[in-house]
Amino acid sequence: MRPQEIIAKKRDGKTLSNADIGIFVEGVSTGEWADYQISALVMAMFINGLDQREQDELTRAMIYSGKVLDLSSVDRPVVDKHSTGGVGDKTSLIIAPAAAACGLAVPMISGRGLGHTGGTLDKLESIKGFDVGLSMARFTELLGTNGYAMAGQTGEIAPADKKLYALRDATATVPYIPLIVASIMSKKLAEDLDALVLDVKTGSGAFMQEYDDSVKLAEALVQTGKAFGVNTQAVVSDMSQPLGKFVGNALEVYECIKLLKGEGDDAMSATMDLSIELTARMLMLGGVADTMESAEAMVRDVIESGQALAKFRQNVEVQGGNAAVCDDPELLVDDALLRVPFSASAAGYVAAVNTFAVGRAICDIGGGRIKAEDGVDHAVGLECTVRIGDRVEKGDPLGIIYCRDRNQADSISENLQNAYKITEEIPDIPKLIRATV
Amino acid sequence: MRPQEIIAKKRDGKTLSNADIGIFVEGVSTGEWADYQISALVMAMFINGLDQREQDELTRAMIYSGKVLDLSSVDRPVVDKHSTGGVGDKTSLIIAPAAAACGLAVPMISGRGLGHTGGTLDKLESIKGFDVGLSMARFTELLGTNGYAMAGQTGEIAPADKKLYALRDATATVPYIPLIVASIMSKKLAEDLDALVLDVKTGSGAFMQEYDDSVKLAEALVQTGKAFGVNTQAVVSDMSQPLGKFVGNALEVYECIKLLKGEGDDAMSATMDLSIELTARMLMLGGVADTMESAEAMVRDVIESGQALAKFRQNVEVQGGNAAVCDDPELLVDDALLRVPFSASAAGYVAAVNTFAVGRAICDIGGGRIKAEDGVDHAVGLECTVRIGDRVEKGDPLGIIYCRDRNQADSISENLQNAYKITEEIPDIPKLIRATV
Repeated sequence: MRPQEIIAKKRDGKTLSNADIGIFVEGVSTGEWADYQISALVMAMFINGLDQREQDELTRAMIYSGKVLDLSSVDRPVVDKHSTGGVGDKTSLIIAPAAAACGLAVPMISGRGLGHTGGTLDKLESIKGFDVGLSMARFTELLGTNGYAMAGQTGEIAPADKKLYALRDATATVPYIPLIVASIMSKKLAEDLDALVLDVKTGSGAFMQEYDDSVKLAEALVQTGKAFGVNTQAVVSDMSQPLGKFVGNALEVYECIKLLKGEGDDAMSATMDLSIELTARMLMLGGVADTMESAEAMVRDVIESGQALAKFRQNVEVQGGNAAVCDDPELLVDDALLRVPFSASAAGYVAAVNTFAVGRAICDIGGGRIKAEDGVDHAVGLECTVRIGDRVEKGDPLGIIYCRDRNQADSISENLQNAYKITEEIPDIPKLIRATV
Repeated sequence: MRPQEIIAKKRDGKTLSNADIGIFVEGVSTGEWADYQISALVMAMFINGLDQREQDELTRAMIYSGKVLDLSSVDRPVVDKHSTGGVGDKTSLIIAPAAAACGLAVPMISGRGLGHTGGTLDKLESIKGFDVGLSMARFTELLGTNGYAMAGQTGEIAPADKKLYALRDATATVPYIPLIVASIMSKKLAEDLDALVLDVKTGSGAFMQEYDDSVKLAEALVQTGKAFGVNTQAVVSDMSQPLGKFVGNALEVYECIKLLKGEGDDAMSATMDLSIELTARMLMLGGVADTMESAEAMVRDVIESGQALAKFRQNVEVQGGNAAVCDDPELLVDDALLRVPFSASAAGYVAAVNTFAVGRAICDIGGGRIKAEDGVDHAVGLECTVRIGDRVEKGDPLGIIYCRDRNQADSISENLQNAYKITEEIPDIPKLIRATV
């Protein structure tokens, strides 16, 4: 069948057969469909919609566009966590070693940062020598021996998604739930999981900024996970301000190691709280704990006892990274960086943060990517001095820009200042966990 | 503004500003927009619609994406005819010389055949030596001296349309009236016309097969022509069977020269009747005739007196073609061709013709193009022996395939036989002129 015939069906609001969807995804993977044909069909899907069967079939076809892991040799419950992405969202670096220390296998195949959001791979690569390019065989082996491994999405896992996502990003077709579900779940369901915990962000730094949309996405993700036989839960968590204390690749690793060493401060508490919540849910779904209380206690225990840090260290070592950062996280903070504060222009309460603008500002000084092919400066970033609800006087610092030179700071400090809304009224403080699905 | 922001507007059903449309068309012309971004927006336009202002602005932006002719030096009313394309539709070859002989200037910028339909340029090129690659300056000069010239759409006229059409063809976004109107009218309104007559085909061989759709397209084209200050009329003409006697490039030129020489036969009468109707309307709109009766009489007179053939000959000569075909049109019919009839499988009346299938069959033996880059065999084609309403007995010939070898005939004769529907009831005979707008 010619691409035009399948495109015309969805253009006219008809449903696509499983065969149509199979031909499409194969055309994407093999390159038989031209990019402009793919994007025309995706736009028609976006506007005219996909029903549940079409969404499931799209997910299935995308899973099988590449290799599916076989983790039957791994003698632990296989459970992963996936976040829809945000600013300062670094929980994977705590969750993976903590969950592994509690007995789970965590096959964490992660992505790179794009746009205002960061990516786990970039964070890991700020550790000198860390190699995320593991082969499938090595990845599987490490899961068995260490309980976790950190790898990038290779061309082998859901290759159709990689191409589709790049086209969606360029053609304004990202924010449609069935396409998001197929994209996320095709990668996760290729991991041969027993269970999956999803962290769906909501608020100004999330892809789905509206709470209702985030809940809908969480529900759709859980439904699809269950339809494919994976025990799935979702947490809708707050992204109305950066998570924790730091934004920026090396600075976020620094924050996590400080927390794993028991040296965290109050500004880092949201990172810790969300990491514990998500890890505890993974333990429950993986059958390692019976109640949330006991699960949380297990997580706290492996962190406080240093077992989680030991797992982290073990992982850094086997993946070629400089494990000295585990003893001395200050190694991650480049001495040559300037630290330039930006300040409140009025007295009052921090009422809201344009977290998207914060993420973009860090991007603008090289800490993230505008386009997938851009390089990243791992060192630069932001220290968040205030949080929603804090009282500030005019001239008080709102945050500190970690940058290479004064020009970088000048180029973003006004944007950052404007990103913090100061009001006279005392605002509501957003709850970290908004909902569970 | 990033392409994504404009795409998202139309994706969400909003109207585009004139500035948005200008940025889009410029992005198409300059290559700043990627093909996949163009096709995503075009699909969103197709599904969510363009209002009248958007359609007019799209047309305007596409006109000014290239050069606009300046025919102020031409001392005749400048009037063109455009057909939406069909099978055996060869009227341009009669209309241009006849209208020029009556005192009009006809700046006929034509296209090539694509899919099941033929194109005037291909037909002309079946005359040995005929060069359709005129410069703008030469084209304008010939309009002044000869009253008409035949040229191809260069990269200079409406370049945005050329790219857009190719993408629409590949992404199932051709059949949407505002996009069709912008495509046709951007090219025609770049010709600096005083008046324009449009021949909108309807029936099984037309792009708009349904009569109501054809009328709507005719109305939209006329409205746009008038909005741009060009005196515009449209005729909705029958394309429920091939027009006239022959289909195929050289064979169609042969038919036209026979008609211009006064040697036509009954099977060619529809070609003559439609040519006269359209030319007469051009004379009326151009102010050369006051009534349809006097206009038709003028056209018949220049044909019967040989003035139209003289114009045709003059044009062939100045454009480098072998003018001997005007004296001996048999030169156009390759002696080496096989003539293979295909026959009725039952007795009855010819009730309907799948004209699309007829056009595709000729394409299949090389007489047309599937893709724009395909070559064309000018010699091959079809002689239509019967018309709708004719009585046939089982085994009577329905038509004659002019082909290179027996394999070609075998490959399409069943398709052609099936394209002719034979019934026991006497069918209605379609009127050649279905409506005027």
